[in-house]
Amino acid sequence: MASASDPIEFHRQSRGKTAITSKIPLDAQNLSIVYTPGVGEVSMAIAEDPALVRELTGKQNTVAIVTDGTAVLGLGDIGPEAALPVMEGKAAIFSEFAGINAVPICLATKDPDAIVETVKNIAPGFGGINLEDISAPRCFEIERRLTRDLDIPVFHDDQHGTAIVVLAGLINALAVAGKSDEVRIAISGAGAAGIAIAQLLVAYGLTTIRISDSKGVLSAERETLNDDQRDVLALSTADASWPVGAAVLDGADVFIGVSRAGLFSSDDIRRMRENPMVFALANPVPEIMPDEARAGGAVVVATGRSDFPNQINNALVFPGLFRGLLDHDVEQVSVPIKLAVAAALAGLVETPTPDAIVPSIFDERVVPAIARAVGESVA
Amino acid sequence: MASASDPIEFHRQSRGKTAITSKIPLDAQNLSIVYTPGVGEVSMAIAEDPALVRELTGKQNTVAIVTDGTAVLGLGDIGPEAALPVMEGKAAIFSEFAGINAVPICLATKDPDAIVETVKNIAPGFGGINLEDISAPRCFEIERRLTRDLDIPVFHDDQHGTAIVVLAGLINALAVAGKSDEVRIAISGAGAAGIAIAQLLVAYGLTTIRISDSKGVLSAERETLNDDQRDVLALSTADASWPVGAAVLDGADVFIGVSRAGLFSSDDIRRMRENPMVFALANPVPEIMPDEARAGGAVVVATGRSDFPNQINNALVFPGLFRGLLDHDVEQVSVPIKLAVAAALAGLVETPTPDAIVPSIFDERVVPAIARAVGESVA
Repeated sequence: MASASDPIEFHRQSRGKTAITSKIPLDAQNLSIVYTPGVGEVSMAIAEDPALVRELTGKQNTVAIVTDGTAVLGLGDIGPEAALPVMEGKAAIFSEFAGINAVPICLATKDPDAIVETVKNIAPGFGGINLEDISAPRCFEIERRLTRDLDIPVFHDDQHGTAIVVLAGLINALAVAGKSDEVRIAISGAGAAGIAIAQLLVAYGLTTIRISDSKGVLSAERETLNDDQRDVLALSTADASWPVGAAVLDGADVFIGVSRAGLFSSDDIRRMRENPMVFALANPVPEIMPDEARAGGAVVVATGRSDFPNQINNALVFPGLFRGLLDHDVEQVSVPIKLAVAAALAGLVETPTPDAIVPSIFDERVVPAIARAVGESVA
Repeated sequence: MASASDPIEFHRQSRGKTAITSKIPLDAQNLSIVYTPGVGEVSMAIAEDPALVRELTGKQNTVAIVTDGTAVLGLGDIGPEAALPVMEGKAAIFSEFAGINAVPICLATKDPDAIVETVKNIAPGFGGINLEDISAPRCFEIERRLTRDLDIPVFHDDQHGTAIVVLAGLINALAVAGKSDEVRIAISGAGAAGIAIAQLLVAYGLTTIRISDSKGVLSAERETLNDDQRDVLALSTADASWPVGAAVLDGADVFIGVSRAGLFSSDDIRRMRENPMVFALANPVPEIMPDEARAGGAVVVATGRSDFPNQINNALVFPGLFRGLLDHDVEQVSVPIKLAVAAALAGLVETPTPDAIVPSIFDERVVPAIARAVGESVA
């Protein structure tokens, strides 16, 4: 096996990061059970009762990681081939952390109708669909239509995985900062992650939310808003209680950045309210570096990076979430499930501190705790 | 691991026959190479030069096994869920025999246009497409369109895998029976396998072929022939040299059955020419049982079953064929490739006998010999 040091060299030697292997050695005896003629009996049983596919095949432990390559990491629309190494990495995480068989499906189309049709067409062999790195606003429509039409869970990780980890971290950050649900939250970034974070925070009860993008603070007057941006604005109570100031962060308690590198300085943090919390999640370079945020007075700083404390990483959620969805035959990822998972994740940090608001992704309690939370919320 | 005795019980305990695992343990160091941030460099390299996807990912060792569940084993149109155990078995064989990552893709559509679009849409992550258990005549059109539109090999195993193994067996059977290329061949079954066998035999130079189905011997006058049946009839020289008798097998040297159980008796074999060869390949029950065929005078009898000599099994071909296609970046499975593979397979039997016209699927020389034959025929 290639050693992991230089990424290009590692990938050149490894040529793929997952291996598919037979669970049983194929001697003549086993082959006649695994394949013809024995397997015919299994196929007939499923033909008579299609629900048996969940018991007699790997469907209920297999997830498709579906992307069109339009919003890969911070790299943008780089196409399905260039997206493949990221999806393979995700498949390796699914396997190592949760024992789930995950298959990259990199699509040669960006058309929402074609994506929906393709995913519906391949769905019979999969127990769940992880949508990944599909750009907004198409991702909203695609997820909604697939969720409506399929009887297996569909989860756009860039939206909801991010939102769940942010909420978990925020629950603990509020405890550290000694603040209540009345906090004002400024979200920078109105794409897939920004909108999903706002939706989940509102569902949790944190409704004083302001969202901005490169054109400034979103308001209902702006004509180019998409439906999902418009819907979440309607749910926010920020306008009444929190007049828009000169800068996006003015008067905020919490800053959540899912936008791009270096947008803010310590001066911006100084214009937030006392004991501000900063989630600067742009990858690989955050909206503001942790030392600058702290210089501006931030009491809690989180990033997406592994080389700083408080890594807000989707890998904290998706392995355990799908483990729970698959084990409990869940058909839809509801808001109560997302809230329960965030609470379970937050609860794994017994004593939150400024440098410990979320557990490590290597904490072995994470996957079972999340899977259990999924099970309890559908029980 | 479940022990393989009762098929249903084995499948219930196993819940899927393949496992997807990470090639490298995911500690913090490895994770930063396999996934973010390190993987970003790999994605960027592929975005700049998409051909690198074959070098830096698992694409070139990954095959999609695509079915719509319309012609599964001898069970017919049992649907995509019921087809899944068979595709999983095939994936286990791909892995065990050839080290190939194979992924079942069971389609929720039977529409040829939708199948073609779906496969094209998911193609970027795969190095080859194994079409499986798709009924005729749709399988012909689907394979043709995909072969035309994709830059990866597309191979309908029920057609060409069967045809290649039959040709390999027939090459050695002719040696056993002491017969020449002038033999008369009666094929029972005018579906995917029957037509593909006829096409490949003609390409090999065995052109005196008669094809029959449940309505009798195919002739150009019949109005319901599909295009592929019509094309192969036009290539056959049987009409001129071999007048149709009272029964399908009358005057034939070779019988090849890809139809259904118990169609023929030893009396039918007696109406064939001297030293007849019988390939009774219907599964699980052949067109005529080996003892009956021998009672009728057959000098060589082959079936699709593992409990008789001369098992004509597609698993002799597809693992090595795809190993060769992937290793040599082959974009199309040409007729010369198929002929070369059949010859290589036949060549592994040093001294053909009535009970040994093809090697065992457990013969470890098979996969490398076939892969080498593919490489040599595209060199």
